[in-house]
Amino acid sequence: MNSNMPNRMVTLLTDFGDTDSYVAVVKATILKIDPHVNIIDLTHQVSAQNIIEGAFILGTAWQSFPIGTIHMAIVDPGVGTERKALLLEGNGHIFLAPDNGILSFVIPEDKTRNCLLAQYIADVPKGYTARVLNNENYWLKYTSSTFHARDIFAPTAGHLANGVPPEKLGEIVTSITRFSIIQPSWDNDVLVGKVIHIDHFGNVITTIPNYLLEDNDSVTVFIANNHIERLSLTYGTGTGLIALTGSHGYLEIAIRNGNAAKTLNIKVKDLVKVRRKI
Amino acid sequence: MNSNMPNRMVTLLTDFGDTDSYVAVVKATILKIDPHVNIIDLTHQVSAQNIIEGAFILGTAWQSFPIGTIHMAIVDPGVGTERKALLLEGNGHIFLAPDNGILSFVIPEDKTRNCLLAQYIADVPKGYTARVLNNENYWLKYTSSTFHARDIFAPTAGHLANGVPPEKLGEIVTSITRFSIIQPSWDNDVLVGKVIHIDHFGNVITTIPNYLLEDNDSVTVFIANNHIERLSLTYGTGTGLIALTGSHGYLEIAIRNGNAAKTLNIKVKDLVKVRRKI
Amino acid sequence: MNSNMPNRMVTLLTDFGDTDSYVAVVKATILKIDPHVNIIDLTHQVSAQNIIEGAFILGTAWQSFPIGTIHMAIVDPGVGTERKALLLEGNGHIFLAPDNGILSFVIPEDKTRNCLLAQYIADVPKGYTARVLNNENYWLKYTSSTFHARDIFAPTAGHLANGVPPEKLGEIVTSITRFSIIQPSWDNDVLVGKVIHIDHFGNVITTIPNYLLEDNDSVTVFIANNHIERLSLTYGTGTGLIALTGSHGYLEIAIRNGNAAKTLNIKVKDLVKVRRKI
Repeated sequence: MNSNMPNRMVTLLTDFGDTDSYVAVVKATILKIDPHVNIIDLTHQVSAQNIIEGAFILGTAWQSFPIGTIHMAIVDPGVGTERKALLLEGNGHIFLAPDNGILSFVIPEDKTRNCLLAQYIADVPKGYTARVLNNENYWLKYTSSTFHARDIFAPTAGHLANGVPPEKLGEIVTSITRFSIIQPSWDNDVLVGKVIHIDHFGNVITTIPNYLLEDNDSVTVFIANNHIERLSLTYGTGTGLIALTGSHGYLEIAIRNGNAAKTLNIKVKDLVKVRRKI
Repeated sequence: MNSNMPNRMVTLLTDFGDTDSYVAVVKATILKIDPHVNIIDLTHQVSAQNIIEGAFILGTAWQSFPIGTIHMAIVDPGVGTERKALLLEGNGHIFLAPDNGILSFVIPEDKTRNCLLAQYIADVPKGYTARVLNNENYWLKYTSSTFHARDIFAPTAGHLANGVPPEKLGEIVTSITRFSIIQPSWDNDVLVGKVIHIDHFGNVITTIPNYLLEDNDSVTVFIANNHIERLSLTYGTGTGLIALTGSHGYLEIAIRNGNAAKTLNIKVKDLVKVRRKI
Repeated sequence: MNSNMPNRMVTLLTDFGDTDSYVAVVKATILKIDPHVNIIDLTHQVSAQNIIEGAFILGTAWQSFPIGTIHMAIVDPGVGTERKALLLEGNGHIFLAPDNGILSFVIPEDKTRNCLLAQYIADVPKGYTARVLNNENYWLKYTSSTFHARDIFAPTAGHLANGVPPEKLGEIVTSITRFSIIQPSWDNDVLVGKVIHIDHFGNVITTIPNYLLEDNDSVTVFIANNHIERLSLTYGTGTGLIALTGSHGYLEIAIRNGNAAKTLNIKVKDLVKVRRKI
């Protein structure tokens, strides 16, 4: 290793929680193969088996990492069954994940679909390369049927960091499992979206992208039998319920110094509507 | 970089929790600017918007880190409003934080105040230098109004680690926001303090400094309608409720193999009194 | 340091939780002595003072780390009392822990005992070397009676990583505290074990080792008034309650996409029985 070269980064997103040694064992397995890797936890608190939640969190984070980063995203209720272990390359990043839709937010929107968050088999988008990890030479020698994060994905990440090229790790596949991610658009004066994520503060993140909301003064946001006149610029302005263009790139609903989701009993997939004066 | 030089350390204290990608995105932003930084989490579980809790935890930790460490402390309900983004230098450490009092426990006690934990504007203490981070050249290009940890503080930490001197990052300010931290003193045979923190074990940490309690045998501690004769030396001595000079530097109340705060329903800001035989 | 040499790894397992600065202060103390150490969290969420839980989690993780790794395991209700601070060497790894049984799963089973999880004083097993950390030159200068993770164990880990040999850190002891770990064996067609751990998913891990269960088709598992015919190969096969040979090396009970422990109200130390056709 050239000591002046930055170490390769590997991010981890799982539903493993923090009470067991699962995450540490994954890290140990990577570091045994390449001890110079810099491992960053995205989160290990994805709700158990909640693929869509994991997909969204990964989608809001990967772009902050440098080109060349390897992202392991393991929410994997189908571990050990026929579901494929995938390697996806695109935008200079590498993603390692079960083939169950968890990479839906790192690939472009499929504009031919109009049903939000339905799971289906799709062509690998142009500009991306997907492989099935089927070269057992790069796995742990003993492979369990319940912990592929340790046995297949972690050694793969270690070997990639060490310079093994993706083409050695598995064969190209032309289709992958994905969820339909549909960005809403204005229908005259109305825009309809859904709640996609509730964050740690109880802030409600929606599927409505910020770029559709350029005129802060003219819109009214409707959610959970409440309406909010105008968008705020910060969490610290306004009182009570506020709506603002959030740091994830989507419309957010919040309560100043409070928990909007708990207060209004808002859940993922709830409807949100925006109306503008035209 | 000289490979024999230890990497610069950056600590992170936030109320971001561990269920979202906020912390990871902050780390990615720092590491994109200086990939050799060693980032250490203080905690991300400060109660949402609880500045005083964050201030106390930072105050108990920063001194364990080496000279030159950069500490980011982000509990920031005023993000995007007029509150300043601060850089404070003192004791060989650098602190990056919103100007809301979260640095109160890293600067010396203000002996002119007699009201515990009131927020006020104070002169920057002698020996410390404070700056407002107002040089946008060292921020992310696009700056949101809701996530300055990512957009302003993280790039600042990265550039500092890379060798950019503080004077390039912003102009000197002469006053900062702080909370009054008052250390109690003996009034004849009585010492009165308050509960400042409940730790993970339910141990109750008070504002009474250990150095006032040198004679373990002569004191009685009063809290929550209980009294404790004498101080114990360890958590494992005595039975039931015990009081001891704690590792934070302050008097602690604990229950052997139990949770004192839950058992006695003790809360932050509750009174604690010590009486000695004189 | 030779920059091409991988950094020494130190793992941390504690019951310190993630709301205080305890873990960060331990890391800072290690890194002040050897800034090149790579510190990996096993978990800090061991239930407060639960030595057996900590022992099991350590036992399922340490073997994934490379030879030379230093493991700090601090669940220490006796901190500051007469209990010894131990350094145990074996299998090329070093363990630092209070002498209270937390290392029981890293040393071989004691086949002379037949009571599961009783605490007793035992000879240090052949092939292992134990020392008491009694050389104060390698501790922090000021040593509290409540935070030996910071004051004794962390500096010891730092000095070990820096190349100080174990013999300088303390004298050999010939006995240590341990829990009896008994692996069940077939009694004709019946095998009886106990629940040893409930993981983050509610999967129930038992004391019955996988190698006793080679014929998946012939066994019936009895637990909590339920019985399960045959073993499954993966979490994603079968419906309802399933049993499988788990990634820890022991029989596990799970519910597909569910929480077995909560659903069936299973607790640690509950009985589990296996019957085979012979």
